[in-house]
This record gives sequence, C-alpha cells and structure tokens, in this order.
Amino acid sequence: MFKINENYLKLPGSYLFSTVGRKAREYKAAHPDKNVISLGIGDVTQPLAPAVIQAMHAAVDEMGQAATFRGYAPDLGYEFLRSEIANKDYKARGVEIALDEIFISDGAKSDCGNIGDIFSEDNRIAVCDPVYPVYVDTNAMSGRCGDYIKESERWSNVTYMPCVAENNFVPALPEEAADVIYLCYPNNPTGAAATKEQLQKWVDYALAHQSIIVFDAAYEAYIHEDNIPHSIYECEGAKKCAIEIRSFSKNAGFTGTRLGFTVIPKELTAGGVSLNSLWARRCGTKFNGAPYIIQRAGEAVYSEAGRAQTRAQIEYYMNNAKVIRESLTSAGYEVFGGVNAPYIWLRTPKGMTSWDFFDYLLANAQVVGTPGSGFGPSGEGYFRLTAFGSYENTVEALDRIKKMG
Amino acid sequence: MFKINENYLKLPGSYLFSTVGRKAREYKAAHPDKNVISLGIGDVTQPLAPAVIQAMHAAVDEMGQAATFRGYAPDLGYEFLRSEIANKDYKARGVEIALDEIFISDGAKSDCGNIGDIFSEDNRIAVCDPVYPVYVDTNAMSGRCGDYIKESERWSNVTYMPCVAENNFVPALPEEAADVIYLCYPNNPTGAAATKEQLQKWVDYALAHQSIIVFDAAYEAYIHEDNIPHSIYECEGAKKCAIEIRSFSKNAGFTGTRLGFTVIPKELTAGGVSLNSLWARRCGTKFNGAPYIIQRAGEAVYSEAGRAQTRAQIEYYMNNAKVIRESLTSAGYEVFGGVNAPYIWLRTPKGMTSWDFFDYLLANAQVVGTPGSGFGPSGEGYFRLTAFGSYENTVEALDRIKKMG
Repeated sequence: MFKINENYLKLPGSYLFSTVGRKAREYKAAHPDKNVISLGIGDVTQPLAPAVIQAMHAAVDEMGQAATFRGYAPDLGYEFLRSEIANKDYKARGVEIALDEIFISDGAKSDCGNIGDIFSEDNRIAVCDPVYPVYVDTNAMSGRCGDYIKESERWSNVTYMPCVAENNFVPALPEEAADVIYLCYPNNPTGAAATKEQLQKWVDYALAHQSIIVFDAAYEAYIHEDNIPHSIYECEGAKKCAIEIRSFSKNAGFTGTRLGFTVIPKELTAGGVSLNSLWARRCGTKFNGAPYIIQRAGEAVYSEAGRAQTRAQIEYYMNNAKVIRESLTSAGYEVFGGVNAPYIWLRTPKGMTSWDFFDYLLANAQVVGTPGSGFGPSGEGYFRLTAFGSYENTVEALDRIKKMG
Repeated sequence: MFKINENYLKLPGSYLFSTVGRKAREYKAAHPDKNVISLGIGDVTQPLAPAVIQAMHAAVDEMGQAATFRGYAPDLGYEFLRSEIANKDYKARGVEIALDEIFISDGAKSDCGNIGDIFSEDNRIAVCDPVYPVYVDTNAMSGRCGDYIKESERWSNVTYMPCVAENNFVPALPEEAADVIYLCYPNNPTGAAATKEQLQKWVDYALAHQSIIVFDAAYEAYIHEDNIPHSIYECEGAKKCAIEIRSFSKNAGFTGTRLGFTVIPKELTAGGVSLNSLWARRCGTKFNGAPYIIQRAGEAVYSEAGRAQTRAQIEYYMNNAKVIRESLTSAGYEVFGGVNAPYIWLRTPKGMTSWDFFDYLLANAQVVGTPGSGFGPSGEGYFRLTAFGSYENTVEALDRIKKMG
C-alpha cells in the first residue's frame, strides 16, 4: 500500500502572503475610492535590461536554425556563463572558484530547497529568526525538523537564532552544536548586512564544529558599503565549510526569467566525501539544466552594457530604499536595513504588534507591507517594506505615512 | 558534525553514455578518415518550430517593457498554458482534467525525480527492466531502494519487471505487492507502446493494491496507432491511482528549452490525503516556476501553426524510424519499436552481447548506438538506435549496416 511522506502533514499553513493579500483585497472592496499601494512583496517591477533582451532575441533565433540549435545543455550549465561568474563574481574579488565548482540552476529558491537532498536526515539545522521560510519548510519536508510546536511557532529539532535590533540582526553563535547553518546576507527580511569580521566568526565556528554553512547571497548586488563581503569565500577557510547560493532574480530582475547558481568548492568534504561530486550527481540525475536562452540572458548580465543597465536598476530600487528610510526616520520611526539590501525593517510604533501595525497602516495610509512576525517569532514588533515598487508609488506611500503621524 | 546523505554513496557509476562517448572518441582518433554517425543519444536535432520562435520573440519583448513585464509566475504555471493542456491534451481525448490538477515544470526529468519528495521512504518501487535510469537512481538517493547488488546489477528493495520480446515489452503484473509503479509508454528504450487493455490491467492492479502509478508519457506525441492511449487517464479509474508526467522535449524539440508538466488528479488520495495538495505544497516551496518566455513557447506549441509545425518535426523523425526499421528488417534483423516511438530496439545478431554488437557496429559501419544492457540486465542482447538524427545521416548509417551484412 502506497504511503505519503508524512512530514508534509506536519507543515503549518503558509498563510503570511495569502493573509496579506486577503486583507488588502477586503480593504479595497470596502473602500473602492482609495488607492492602495503595495510595498509588501519581494518581487521586482523594472523590465529586463536591454542587453538581456537583445541576448535573448539572438538566442531565440539560434534555436530556430538547425546549424545553431541547442539540445540538452551540459549538466553544470554552459561554460560561457560559468566563466563569467568565475571571473566577474569571484576572481575580481580575489576569490578563485573553478568552473566545475559552479552549478547553474533555475533559481536560488530551488537550490535552497534541493541542496538538502545531499544532506543526511540526521543533521540539526540552525536558522535565523526571522527567516525566509524556504530553509525550514524544505528541511521539515525531509524530516529534519522534528515536530511543529504551534504555541512557540517553532520546530522541535531546529536551532533558532534570534536576529533583533540588539544584535544588529546578526545572530550569536549557537550554544548547541548545529550541523547545517543557513545564513542569508544581505538579509531578507531584515535588510541587515554582515561584515567580514562577523561572517568570519561563523566560518571559524563551522570549521571548529565540522558544520556546513549554506550561504544565501541572493541580495549580494545590493551591497553598497565597503566592509561588507560579497561572497562568504572572502572569509578564510570558507571553501572548506560553505556552500554559496546566488540568484539573478534581484540583481537583474529575473524573478520571472529564472536563473541562479550554487557554488560548492571541491575542498568541501564530509567524512572524506566531496559535496561537489554529490551535488553533481544530484544535478545530473534530477535536473536537466536551465534553458539555453536563459543562460544566454544570464551571460548578458555580465557584459559591459548589461552590468551598467542592471546596476542602474539596482540604484533605482536603492533610491526607493533611501526615500523609505529617510521618510520613516524623519517621521520618528526606528528603521533598519535599506543600505545594503532592498528591504527596510522598522520597529512598529507604540508597542503595536506586527499585525496591528499592518491594519493601522492599511487603514490610515492605504499602504500594504509585511508583518515581521510572519517571518518568525523574533520578527514580532517589526515590519517590512520593500524597495521594489515604482519611485512614484514609493514617494506617495511615504508621504501618506508621514501625514498619518 | 555535518553528515552527508549516505544513500548517494551506494549509487553505481552512471557510465553508459560516458562509455559510449569514450569508445566513439577513441575509434575516431584511431580512424581519422572515417565518418562516424551517431544514432545513440535521445536528443533532438531539428530547430524549434517557427510558431514557437515567434512566440518567444514576442514574450522577450514583453519582458523588456515595464507595462508587460512579468515577475514571479503563479505557482502552478500560467493559466494560458494550463488551459491549452487541459483542452487539447485531455478534453479532446475525452478526459476531464481541471486546471489546478496541472503543474507546469522545467521538464519531465525533474518531475520524475522530484515526485518522490511526496512519497514516504517506506514504499517499495517497481520498474521495468530495461528502464530509463532516473526512476531508480532518484529513489535510491532517497533511501527507497536498499543496496545495490553488483552481481545482479539490481537494487535489493526494488521490484524489476522484465520487458522482453516474449511479452511484447509490456511486463507482467508483479507477484509481490508494489507501492509505486513506474511505467513509461511509449517506452524508452524499447520503443514499445501499451494498448488500452494492457494499461487498464495496471490501473486495476493499482486500485486493488492501493498502489500509485507514475506514468511517464514523454513520448506520447509519437503514437501513430489508434488503439494506443495517449494518456493513462483514458483508462477507467486511473484518476484514483495515477500521476502522469509529460514533456515538451520530444514533441516540440524542447530538450534545451526545458518545459514539462505533471498531472495529479484531486481524486488521487492516500490515507485520506490529497496528493495534489502535497505536490502543490512541494512546488510552492521548492520551485519557482518555468520562465514566462518558455511558458509562452509552450503555449505556441498548441496554436494551429505550432501543432502543424511540431507534427511535421515528429513525422520527420518517424520517417527516420521507418528507414531504420525497414532497412534492418530487410537486412535480417529482428526489430521492435519505431512505430509509436522514436526508438528502435533490435535483437543483437548471432547471440552477440549488447556491448559486442556496439563494438562490431562501430568497427564495421562506423555507427554509434546504445547497448541495451546499459538500461538494465533484461536489455542484454538488445540494442537501441534513435530516430533523432538527420534523414541523410540515418539513410547513410543504415546503408552501411546493410552492407556490413
């Protein structure tokens, strides 16, 4: 008799964005005259860069001609893309990454979840709190999290590392040993960045405890301060303990175009086994690569024109972030993030809960954001706004918030 | 201390196509004057259809304009594509599939592997022998196959169902109960098709034993005979026991473009739990959809022009299949497949092993095929040729084989 994976039944409902959406719809239905602005969702709005569009048109034409048609891609991804990554993302920052340490994928979300395939079930994971929910949910699906405790909103076998204003949203090293540590910097949702010194402590911890760090660097392109490392491999010894996952979603607007990559250095071993070879086997068996056309689009992001154009998109969003930060600060809010990340994390005023502030903001400014508590219990009392809206909407939303008082 | 998934270490090397490639390279190096023709690999060679190319250009342009730009896709895939599938793949054949029973993916290989995520480890799988290796390898990775026995080339906890000429390459029902049964018709590698009566027996077996059938219909578009079902849902009761996986790789040449889908009817439950809802949760958590541009390409396959053009590609390949079948038959070979599938499966002459015949064919006709034993022990004494080459190469290869005697 067939049996399902019972771990799925332990998952609590994933209601954050659906509840946000429902409340916004209900408000609009009750107030058809009001113009509601969303600064809630982490999806980009700017169109793809002209260099990317041009590259995709050229690749589409190649696929229409027998002489230039491409069938199955190489398992790791096309070398034209991997060599751009190795040179411009890593070598240019003093980090040597070999071409066969880079695995092109359909995006960081897939990789963040799928990477667990090569880990034993018998590992304890540690995550930041608040956190992007994919790390925990995918581990829960494969039985690594124990049971979900509704009262504490936590899983019994997961180590949670609170990230709050008091520790600048970079957690303390865990007291109990953690086998797999998920870190995301620049951080979603808090917008915090980790300095090289802060990250080095984590690398040292992982080396000392033979732990693995899964480092989600999806927001790397938003880094603006000099003392913030762009890759965990800028830290000493990281190649022996860290996997780095990157995305084209936020640095080039590929949320609907789907491209990312994972780096697994060959020095990274466990019990003498190379994790690079395990992941290669996983990719060769359960994946058939990102589309040729999309890999060419990714290559164009690294061209001179592509870099200038995608940089301009990032600056557009970061200008929104600046508007949000400065407006909120001048209105008396305590504000975090938004300097090296497209997320602004604010402390809710007057001791309101995150959801109370959500309702208050919607009712009084017609602005939709995301309650911090939706990302984990330590997010309670915080609230997330994103810089991914249009400039006009961002300015209008912040004017309303300032007037709201 | 971090621990790897030890199941990966049990996997035998996947040497079939690498050994085929190495032997072909060595032969070419030793005989630089010879023109070696490959009819070995299951990859398409015809360029994408003009209707598909046109749709992708249009979609690329949409992505370059703010007004028409698309970010994250809906979790299940765009409705414009799912409704074409529901109407033209299913409703047109008398099968009602709801839009939320269709999940768009990046290809059938990913789905064939990932579907195991929602199955308990504690299921016994049954596969055909010979078989496409992904079903077994992905189950072995998640610990469902026991240990690999080198002598028998089989896993200790897997039920193998021999498919040989004597049973027309459609296996007998297993004597021991199987929980998850992988079936692929039209079949890779044997080229066999299953009639509705044959498939109905499997559906009846699954219903009686509360088993699940994972039905891989990647080669559905190659069906040419009337009594062959295009979907397992043409069988009575299949919605209660079968998952169907389809691909655009072989019906529209998308091997390098990546698109597929999985159908999980809402009637399919286990212990009262809907598998559709489990898979929806899996897709929403570990996947972010196929690119918008590629989903538009898929939609174009269903347009009037797209259907005519992709049908012409299939007929081109099937004409190659006819050339291979008729030439081999006239040369005295015992030949199977190639009528409802792009694969021709032949019995090796004079009792040669599959690898002996590989060497013989390469040395005497400079043609590369795939040894049947590479797909499983019951493939020993068989050999696979594919119809995916050019017409000219196919004719030339078969002329040589005929002359070889």
